Amino acid sequence: MVTETFSLHAKLAADTISIGDLQSSRLLLMNDARYAWLILVPRCDQVMDLDQLTDDDRTAVWKDIMQVSAALRALTNPFKLNIAALGNQVPQLHIHIVARNQGDAAWPGPVWGVGNAEPYDPNIATTFVDDCRQALGL
Amino acid sequence: MVTETFSLHAKLAADTISIGDLQSSRLLLMNDARYAWLILVPRCDQVMDLDQLTDDDRTAVWKDIMQVSAALRALTNPFKLNIAALGNQVPQLHIHIVARNQGDAAWPGPVWGVGNAEPYDPNIATTFVDDCRQALGL
Repeated sequence: MVTETFSLHAKLAADTISIGDLQSSRLLLMNDARYAWLILVPRCDQVMDLDQLTDDDRTAVWKDIMQVSAALRALTNPFKLNIAALGNQVPQLHIHIVARNQGDAAWPGPVWGVGNAEPYDPNIATTFVDDCRQALGL
Repeated sequence: MVTETFSLHAKLAADTISIGDLQSSRLLLMNDARYAWLILVPRCDQVMDLDQLTDDDRTAVWKDIMQVSAALRALTNPFKLNIAALGNQVPQLHIHIVARNQGDAAWPGPVWGVGNAEPYDPNIATTFVDDCRQALGL
């Protein structure tokens, strides 16, 4: 499924910090220190929604989702995970995996569109990205 | 995965109209005429998040998601589908499958927490539920 022509949508690039490439997806950290909020972008083209992936591609993307979910649980011990593919503002298929806790900035609502993102202190971001890479073997 | 002890969370029951049972999940219509908004509830217990399903259960739930997505696309021809498991307010695992269109009541934001639900006219709800059942072979 991975295509040579893959390129990350400009808005996703602007809003995130790159963690690295998993088997089928690029993994990003949303630059919003209010949540541990990861975004998986399958490195294929021309797909807007999860149900439009081929069976093989969906299996591969799910493997990445499971790996990232396990790492995020291990690193942040959240109350729960939100897993969602919306993409109303950025048409490139991307999957949000967000560690949620009771009392976080958006709780119990969804994280999208709540207040303004609070960019990470660069040192904290670097540490968290390194932790993610280590947990994922990147 | 389907358990004898499955029972639908009271809030999900109150907010929706039942369409029927697929292989692994109960399918519900959100009683909000602003969107074609379906909810799949895997008929198992003790699972809060998608990544906590066993491999077999996830495969079964994905089959249901694909079936429902195809039916919803065929019935409503949406601009895109939002597929999400949040569950911050209702802990029972449930997956939203929402047909989205440019200019709908929440566009381009997510549908949760936007204004108040507009309950269906009962005749329109009945027709849509029947259409869903027919599309899904229920």
